[in-house]
Amino acid sequence: MKILVINAGSSSLKYQLFDMPQPEPLAVGLVERIGQETSQVRHTLFDHGGNRRQIERSLAVPDHRAGLALVAELLLNPPDSVIDRPADITAIGHRVVHGGERFSQTTLLTSEVKAVLRALSPLAPLHNPPNLQGIEVAEEIFPQAQQVGVFDTAFHQTMPPHAYRYAIPNWLYDQHSIRAYGFHGTSHLYVSKTAAAYLGQPLAETNLITAHLGNGCSITAVQNGQSIDTSMGFSPLPGLMMGTRSGDLDPAVIYFLNTEVGLSLPEIDALLNKQSGLLGISGRIDVRDILARQAEGDPQAHLALEMYTYRLKKYIGAYTAALGRVDALVFTAGVGENSAYIRRQACAELAHLGLVLDQTKNEQPNTGAVREVQAADSRTKILVVPTNEELEIARQTFELVYGGGAPIAPA
Amino acid sequence: MKILVINAGSSSLKYQLFDMPQPEPLAVGLVERIGQETSQVRHTLFDHGGNRRQIERSLAVPDHRAGLALVAELLLNPPDSVIDRPADITAIGHRVVHGGERFSQTTLLTSEVKAVLRALSPLAPLHNPPNLQGIEVAEEIFPQAQQVGVFDTAFHQTMPPHAYRYAIPNWLYDQHSIRAYGFHGTSHLYVSKTAAAYLGQPLAETNLITAHLGNGCSITAVQNGQSIDTSMGFSPLPGLMMGTRSGDLDPAVIYFLNTEVGLSLPEIDALLNKQSGLLGISGRIDVRDILARQAEGDPQAHLALEMYTYRLKKYIGAYTAALGRVDALVFTAGVGENSAYIRRQACAELAHLGLVLDQTKNEQPNTGAVREVQAADSRTKILVVPTNEELEIARQTFELVYGGGAPIAPA
Repeated sequence: MKILVINAGSSSLKYQLFDMPQPEPLAVGLVERIGQETSQVRHTLFDHGGNRRQIERSLAVPDHRAGLALVAELLLNPPDSVIDRPADITAIGHRVVHGGERFSQTTLLTSEVKAVLRALSPLAPLHNPPNLQGIEVAEEIFPQAQQVGVFDTAFHQTMPPHAYRYAIPNWLYDQHSIRAYGFHGTSHLYVSKTAAAYLGQPLAETNLITAHLGNGCSITAVQNGQSIDTSMGFSPLPGLMMGTRSGDLDPAVIYFLNTEVGLSLPEIDALLNKQSGLLGISGRIDVRDILARQAEGDPQAHLALEMYTYRLKKYIGAYTAALGRVDALVFTAGVGENSAYIRRQACAELAHLGLVLDQTKNEQPNTGAVREVQAADSRTKILVVPTNEELEIARQTFELVYGGGAPIAPA
Repeated sequence: MKILVINAGSSSLKYQLFDMPQPEPLAVGLVERIGQETSQVRHTLFDHGGNRRQIERSLAVPDHRAGLALVAELLLNPPDSVIDRPADITAIGHRVVHGGERFSQTTLLTSEVKAVLRALSPLAPLHNPPNLQGIEVAEEIFPQAQQVGVFDTAFHQTMPPHAYRYAIPNWLYDQHSIRAYGFHGTSHLYVSKTAAAYLGQPLAETNLITAHLGNGCSITAVQNGQSIDTSMGFSPLPGLMMGTRSGDLDPAVIYFLNTEVGLSLPEIDALLNKQSGLLGISGRIDVRDILARQAEGDPQAHLALEMYTYRLKKYIGAYTAALGRVDALVFTAGVGENSAYIRRQACAELAHLGLVLDQTKNEQPNTGAVREVQAADSRTKILVVPTNEELEIARQTFELVYGGGAPIAPA
């Protein structure tokens, strides 16, 4: 079953083509700078022998429609064709950032569902409109395919009210839906499933703390396989320190930035989302660069890493309190999978919480497989679990469309 | 040594007169609604036999000068006089909310110090200006007394940069002093000293988590007697859920409240500080009222209490991670000292962190003395320690003025 996974941003289109239930994609690609004078396309093909071929092009891609048409062409064109005709793709899984309180599950994108997503756009103004655009062009170009929405917020819809509500007047929740939603849900769910399978226990009986540390960072408390709390909130801004986002911040700082520093609210929004985090403190985004600068004695690089890992440690403590038993602490995503330093500092002196790293195991390079990095005397396992959001989206799409036996007919 | 403690708010003046080193005050009082048509004065006298007499008056008190003159009159007037002449008061300890990064210790209020406090006013616009007013009228009315400043922020000046810095661009710290300062420091220090003395160990070797739960709430991680982290930040808004303040909140909510809900920044500031917290969720501020409503089945009262105690539990976990060894968890202030329910819920299912309450001990009414409420199998002690910020201010003032032997001459 050929399933295409699409992640449409404001000026980009990421995609992966799977032949489900095979976990390796047939093709992976990215169209960037859509709408600008010259767009970039990178299309990579994999054969069953594990070989890869990369095609790169610079050309004008005026809009998402043209972008997806180009993807279709790349998938169809001999000698590198991976499908014979567009109708070979029978389902498309779309990453949708915000499903609000309405979507706690992967969902067929009927016109009614799309109307709800449109109504949710004020909650995710940067993400839901391009996600919807991606859905609409996919319906045009692949009219025979089922269109499926997989929501970044869905996994966190199991959070109880005492975790997702803010202590602000009720009418702001009742009338304006202001609450914590959480994000990165597809990744937290994928690594939770993978960790439970690795541990050999049912997900529904597994308690985890999953730390997704990429450019964006979030950490989730998973109880009996369900998210009960997560560090991102109403937006992807709060919680852990990230590449360019501030994470947790006294909200009164915003008032001060406006009244005393003289910044407008849009300027503050950009400052907290694009100029803060590791970048704001160290001048760099990439943890490897910051580690190199720390090694050269740069005090700002050192401070950035201390702040990053201290906050992570506090969240690990907070979620240990919330969960009671923890079967495993899971590190995932670019930084979580690859930075032994970040894992070491975040777990330092947490033996009293049952967490002890094995320094040698922790220093081993990322293999792409699940691996244990805790010491023999660690009460709680510490796992490195590579994430794969695209595969999770493909699996959920496959499950929804083919899971019940015969495929559902397109809406 | 007669030492007067003054806490001057925007329209109020609280005071206590001590005869140091005696810990019981001679007189305690409050002038309220200063500047309004009718002000209220409540003045209470204590004799050594433990008897108390209360004097209440309604009269016009146009400003803080008139307010403090009235206090002087009440202290001097026979038959209830506690001093013979104003010069009997040889030192006055002023509660000052914000000492910035400059004051990590109790300080004589020289004109240079007052100039610094004036310069810090943008950081505490609601508090420092009336605190300064209180100092100036005290200098007029008690010119022979030493004026001493005791800062709410001072105890937290030992926090390391990775705890007090926000992950926002460096220039906001360098040029605008935006960082976490923490508040309630006098209370956290007082209960830390009291708890260490109770445990029979030097404060400098004592690790504590101190939860000050009053109308405002904050929690502090104390390592070797020093604050290493606290839940309030740049302002008293973040951290735990409070009577009317939101505590922690995704800063992006502020942007949404402005752009989508249509509130101005001053309206948002008032909403988060005065209409949020327990009030915003349950419609009530007082935990006893909310408990009564929960008992009647009110779901909003239940939600408010769940949110309040869940956040407390997460901070206990976070600070347990930050501290390593914890000698005692300390509950203090109105709610912390008196609400067995709040303590029970906050400590529920924390045995894995070494915290187990003894339910019977926990239910005993507040005696005014330090008491242990942990179970026999609790690794960590759980203490109820009544706070006394006024006594701490009096002690620090006494120590500064008389600690070195002969009193320092007035500036």
